[in-house]
Amino acid sequence: MNRIDGGVTAAKGFEAAAAAAGIKYQDRTDMALIYSEKPCKAAGTFTTNVVKAAPVKWDRAIIERKLRPQAVIVNSGIANACTGKEGMDCCRKTAEAAARTLHVDADSVLIGSTGVIGMQIPMDRIEKGIRILAAERKADRESGAAAAKAIMTTDTRPKEAAVTFEVGGKTVTIGGMAKGSGMIHPNMCTMLSFITTDAKISGKALRKALSADVEDTYNMISVDGDTSTNDTVLLLANGRAENEKIRYGTPEYDQFCEALHYVNETLAKKMAGDGEGATALFEAKIVGAQSKEQAKVLAKSIVCSSLTKTAIAGHDANWGRILCAMGYSGARFDPEKVTLFFESSAGKLKIIENGVAVEYSEEKATEILSQPEVKVTADIGEGDAQAAAWGCDLTHEYININADYRS
Amino acid sequence: MNRIDGGVTAAKGFEAAAAAAGIKYQDRTDMALIYSEKPCKAAGTFTTNVVKAAPVKWDRAIIERKLRPQAVIVNSGIANACTGKEGMDCCRKTAEAAARTLHVDADSVLIGSTGVIGMQIPMDRIEKGIRILAAERKADRESGAAAAKAIMTTDTRPKEAAVTFEVGGKTVTIGGMAKGSGMIHPNMCTMLSFITTDAKISGKALRKALSADVEDTYNMISVDGDTSTNDTVLLLANGRAENEKIRYGTPEYDQFCEALHYVNETLAKKMAGDGEGATALFEAKIVGAQSKEQAKVLAKSIVCSSLTKTAIAGHDANWGRILCAMGYSGARFDPEKVTLFFESSAGKLKIIENGVAVEYSEEKATEILSQPEVKVTADIGEGDAQAAAWGCDLTHEYININADYRS
Repeated sequence: MNRIDGGVTAAKGFEAAAAAAGIKYQDRTDMALIYSEKPCKAAGTFTTNVVKAAPVKWDRAIIERKLRPQAVIVNSGIANACTGKEGMDCCRKTAEAAARTLHVDADSVLIGSTGVIGMQIPMDRIEKGIRILAAERKADRESGAAAAKAIMTTDTRPKEAAVTFEVGGKTVTIGGMAKGSGMIHPNMCTMLSFITTDAKISGKALRKALSADVEDTYNMISVDGDTSTNDTVLLLANGRAENEKIRYGTPEYDQFCEALHYVNETLAKKMAGDGEGATALFEAKIVGAQSKEQAKVLAKSIVCSSLTKTAIAGHDANWGRILCAMGYSGARFDPEKVTLFFESSAGKLKIIENGVAVEYSEEKATEILSQPEVKVTADIGEGDAQAAAWGCDLTHEYININADYRS
Repeated sequence: MNRIDGGVTAAKGFEAAAAAAGIKYQDRTDMALIYSEKPCKAAGTFTTNVVKAAPVKWDRAIIERKLRPQAVIVNSGIANACTGKEGMDCCRKTAEAAARTLHVDADSVLIGSTGVIGMQIPMDRIEKGIRILAAERKADRESGAAAAKAIMTTDTRPKEAAVTFEVGGKTVTIGGMAKGSGMIHPNMCTMLSFITTDAKISGKALRKALSADVEDTYNMISVDGDTSTNDTVLLLANGRAENEKIRYGTPEYDQFCEALHYVNETLAKKMAGDGEGATALFEAKIVGAQSKEQAKVLAKSIVCSSLTKTAIAGHDANWGRILCAMGYSGARFDPEKVTLFFESSAGKLKIIENGVAVEYSEEKATEILSQPEVKVTADIGEGDAQAAAWGCDLTHEYININADYRS
């Protein structure tokens, strides 16, 4: 497996573009296109929120009917959620406009939206944006990067990842882009993420690979505990690598899963580290668990705790809050068997052993917790299973961003 | 039912005191005593956190053995949680010291602690504090108020409530005090709350009344989603009102429950409104539900959402976040049947009808949301059940308080 620079245009036969359509933001791009020269096999996972945005309903229907998408139209600024019949009409009209301009079928157009809930999207601007996107689409590195930038809302950095691996002498590429900074909470998949691959792969293998990996990547991040109405992960495979077809359960499938996992985990960690107002990526790792499920529940609870997150913001080794968050997670464990470490580029420090504090240097702990990526590892002394979750610190900037987001 | 001024000394035969013992805070009182001239029947509910503080374990054993408590010793500053065997020894020594000084049995002494997790409590200061408390205890209004003040940590206001009602010509009083500002989340009972009554009441009736009412009061508040290691509600009844004994299932029992509910709800709302950094008490009410359980899950989800809470801090009528929080609550409902109102002392405004926005004045909405108590009511149009939950806004001050709590 070979990590490479790139995003949604890294795989063969995929083009991308960005456009400034003035949907809500001015003076920046706010629409993106992913276009495949060939129709794709597709897999998708969507928000579990009862309140589902119109584009989530639109995409899910296409994925469930096993249609062959060829384009994805994304806008940032307005979520098209809680918009009733008018919101669904907007999806249909968007797909029809893209279909006319790109010469594809309307039901091969997937749609992603992110931004304010409850506002209607101005269709005339969407149509203008689609014309720009269609004219500008290219397969180069820059176009992929421009698309990754156009889908940002409160994100401070675009998020891309790409990787290649060999299948029977053919190079297969998986690349992706994602956005997500607020309303991020681990429950199914909680943001927009678009992954493209030129792998030739069976539909079953594609769907299995995505649904399994989402559980260990996007579902293990949290910024603020709010599961969005718009969460979408789409995985498109156009077969252009011309490898022998990858089938479920084969060694090549395992290779594909490993590469997909790298792209998904990288994008998920980038989202957590760029959480609204965040100054640090915060990883919680549970080792010595009886089961992976137990480890996941404990790890998630730590990164979701407001008190843990504010302690990280203050570079304060307040380990009591971490044990407290593990305690109310719903998972059983023996607090008196827990050994806990803080770790970062500044070193590793044991803080508690068998549930009570050891003598440690508060200064050293503060230094460790002042780095841009910090990690807490709790060994619960029960078995061999482990899991990690990713979040961020909770800072004043989160309040600034969200106390007045709409205006 | 008659609402009166007062707290834990409102009921006959209860005394209270406060002491400055220097446990962690200096220049303020940090220990409190509640003393009953007669042994009490007692009920209690405790944190569901797997990590339980030593005093929680101590109290639970006394309540489960149906012993007759006569005193409660509370300290603020150190939680005595994650303190291992030394922490349990501290409880035993505290009870023994109080027993000697107050001339009661050690297993009639309940203990409450709140503050930093993981530190050991200095026993010499506790013993000094107990001597002061025993010497100063009085049954007057001021002593109750002083105790309510001594148990505060990051609270900005003491929290008391009291009420009287008549049983067969005898006046029965219920009064209480509580503390709680951070690490507050609805799951069993999430703070320290001490309720005293002079009612003569059967042990069964006392326990039933408390466990039922906790579900609708303390369990319906949230400040930050963190369920503490120390949550404790204690209800002590000394029988000094000399009423005919109240038994479970009688009309007098219903009267007792109504009065207890008033005290519990008042204290719970005071805690929510005084959440760390809060500028507003935020009530979410669900009406038109199929069941009370459905209404509770939806209401809780609204007051727990970081995004809803920051919107309230910004006086921003961001109703999309409220529908979003209802959507990921886990309860089923039809978003397209929801009608939603904002309400406060500044008026009441319909914001959405059947899931989409109506035309409303943003200015008026901002005015309504700028009051110290704001309320959102969502009618989900399915039935007659309803429930309320209480929280607060999420502000910069929450970050200030928690990013550096220990130092």
